[in-house]
Amino acid sequence: MLKVPHLETALTGPLRHLEKKFLENQVTIEGWFREQWQQTPPTFYGSVDLRNAGFKLAPVDTNLFPAGFNNLNPDMMALCVQAVQATMAEKSPCAKRLLLIPESHTRNLFYFENLAMLSEILKRAGFDVRIASLIPDLTAPLKQLLPSGREIILEPLIRDGDRVGVENYFPCCIVLNNDFSAGIPDVLKNTQQVFLPSLNLGWSTRLKSDHFRIYQTVTDEFSKVIDIDPWLINPYFDHCGAVDFSNQNGQECLAERASVLFQKIREKYAEYKIEQSPFVVVKADQGTYGMAVMMIQDPLELTNLNRKQRTKMMTLKGGSAVTKAIMQEGVHTFETVGEDRAVAEPVVYHIGRHVVGGFYRIHKNRGIDENLNAPGMDFHPLAFAKNCHVPPFAQCEFKEPVNRFYAYGVVGRLAMIAAARETL
Amino acid sequence: MLKVPHLETALTGPLRHLEKKFLENQVTIEGWFREQWQQTPPTFYGSVDLRNAGFKLAPVDTNLFPAGFNNLNPDMMALCVQAVQATMAEKSPCAKRLLLIPESHTRNLFYFENLAMLSEILKRAGFDVRIASLIPDLTAPLKQLLPSGREIILEPLIRDGDRVGVENYFPCCIVLNNDFSAGIPDVLKNTQQVFLPSLNLGWSTRLKSDHFRIYQTVTDEFSKVIDIDPWLINPYFDHCGAVDFSNQNGQECLAERASVLFQKIREKYAEYKIEQSPFVVVKADQGTYGMAVMMIQDPLELTNLNRKQRTKMMTLKGGSAVTKAIMQEGVHTFETVGEDRAVAEPVVYHIGRHVVGGFYRIHKNRGIDENLNAPGMDFHPLAFAKNCHVPPFAQCEFKEPVNRFYAYGVVGRLAMIAAARETL
Repeated sequence: MLKVPHLETALTGPLRHLEKKFLENQVTIEGWFREQWQQTPPTFYGSVDLRNAGFKLAPVDTNLFPAGFNNLNPDMMALCVQAVQATMAEKSPCAKRLLLIPESHTRNLFYFENLAMLSEILKRAGFDVRIASLIPDLTAPLKQLLPSGREIILEPLIRDGDRVGVENYFPCCIVLNNDFSAGIPDVLKNTQQVFLPSLNLGWSTRLKSDHFRIYQTVTDEFSKVIDIDPWLINPYFDHCGAVDFSNQNGQECLAERASVLFQKIREKYAEYKIEQSPFVVVKADQGTYGMAVMMIQDPLELTNLNRKQRTKMMTLKGGSAVTKAIMQEGVHTFETVGEDRAVAEPVVYHIGRHVVGGFYRIHKNRGIDENLNAPGMDFHPLAFAKNCHVPPFAQCEFKEPVNRFYAYGVVGRLAMIAAARETL
Repeated sequence: MLKVPHLETALTGPLRHLEKKFLENQVTIEGWFREQWQQTPPTFYGSVDLRNAGFKLAPVDTNLFPAGFNNLNPDMMALCVQAVQATMAEKSPCAKRLLLIPESHTRNLFYFENLAMLSEILKRAGFDVRIASLIPDLTAPLKQLLPSGREIILEPLIRDGDRVGVENYFPCCIVLNNDFSAGIPDVLKNTQQVFLPSLNLGWSTRLKSDHFRIYQTVTDEFSKVIDIDPWLINPYFDHCGAVDFSNQNGQECLAERASVLFQKIREKYAEYKIEQSPFVVVKADQGTYGMAVMMIQDPLELTNLNRKQRTKMMTLKGGSAVTKAIMQEGVHTFETVGEDRAVAEPVVYHIGRHVVGGFYRIHKNRGIDENLNAPGMDFHPLAFAKNCHVPPFAQCEFKEPVNRFYAYGVVGRLAMIAAARETL
């Protein structure tokens, strides 16, 4: 088991306003979530990157094809297995066998460890699992031995009539762990099989701006229920539908809207007497893996992008060009770990309606306003000690440490509700 | 956390035939359970007392109003909470508040600890919970401080029109932790509320012989699926519908049928080359708490019951007379713990479709063919180290200790399927 060191702020500081609000309203909150899942069934799974500024806790990315299961606390395995069983009972009760379609990475051992863990969770939940790879030149099963001692076998994906599978194995139900940034492959189109989650939730169809627009509605509704300012859980954002980073002049829309965004943030900072400087994160509206992301402290920066900056913003994972961009209020990272105050950014994992764990991305050499999910980033995963779906037990006289992860599970689930509504 | 000592046999011995069969067929087994729960929704919760003879693993009692939640490994709390959330989403998705109706014990601290733990699980799952007691002379809320540091408040149950509740609290959903051995109280009849589990599952309506008759059908079906002799998971039994322990001559039916039962068991023992002596357990057909239970090594014992034995068999919890009896093939206890080889009897806990944990009843001064669930029995609870619903991962190359508790979770769930079918 990963040992969980003392987290300097989130785990030991006094309960902040927001955390207190969540604690006081846990019954209302859990009841509200149950209602939401009745109206909009949850997606199969997902991970949500959060930023915790203490006064504010917000999602910055919602991944519906989560990697990183290997970073969870091994003690959470039983929770993951139970959550898969409960979720499959809702979504595909007859399935006995699963086909897992992963990203087409060929050398990423971290990703393979994730795949091995995900596959193990599904197997322990009582399913046959085989992995069908879309790696173009894969012609025979490829066994990968992993540093953990686990192993995975990638088999070439085969199309047979209206089904896909691997040799002699064409199950009715397919679990996707590939976000299809470059579009849905033709081989997967028009099959008679159930995809979990839906093929339409890949990044070739999804827009971050849609997600955060829906998230705004979700948080407006939620905030009324527990009487908080929705800004405390919702970063301001705006987006531009036609950007061109290939030349110096394609950023007028961004610069103009960034200006408005900064003004709105400054007003809120004044209202809450926040002394930090506001910043804004500019990202490709489609995309993941921390590609095409930049931070700005001033809207003027957008009109003066140098070639290197523009090149960085031009291309997505899979090679697609960036034509739409989203700008999001940056949330300072308030949590640090250790004496050198390395910043710690929480990621919360969900299976169906259940929060099953999470971990911190910890990076020693990065500022509190920098994005940690960058290509090749050197983060150290730190598993949450407890599960965040178990509400702390504030009204109980029985003394035990408050579960500080509960707040993460609340905000993570709000983002998952937004994701579920994207498919409506 | 309770430390789990080395269990001499179950946890370290070689995998027995039955355990191997379960491991080899885990995908088939889990798929079969999913189908069963689709056809017959699980009851809200339940605990199943098992006997493990090594060659044979079978339930001896299925309690649909389980006490003993305080004996589970505290690490299982998150699993219990998640299972309650998943189960309530299926059974009563709109409920936000719960009324818990417990047994009317007034001094049983062990039971109160169970109640405190159960109440905490429900609260952490996100429900308001208050405890409505049926203790006749309770007129005001009664606070009980418990040795664990927890506390519970028992409030007098009130009837208001077609609802029951406590002062200013009449939720739509009621969780029962009272088996109503003495019949369903009038105050609970004809309400408009949802009872979890159904009021009809109390011991005033249930018969053990019905349960084990249905269990026999369940195990016949299950055994075909994984190709085992159903006797390995199903104790032979028979029952008599009109017994009278008040005189020496009321046991003809029992003696006659016990004779047949012993003969059948001896044949099976010969077939499997089992050297132990068979024994039979005689119990009241309705009832619990280990009352009205006796072991016999020979059917002749039934025709020679002395006054003390007959008195013991005459009365049930709540004072009802015993008029029906069940006889069940005894299953020797194969598991022992420690150097003095104290016998260890597993109890498995279920919430909805999920196995959430279990513990051993451990007793040093009792033989391997004696019933541990006796009034005032001095058992020491030993929480299972792992959860038994997580199948071991036999086909994985990654080395980790096999989870020996899986077999318990399989047989426990078979009994829970039988219980669910009782309500059909």
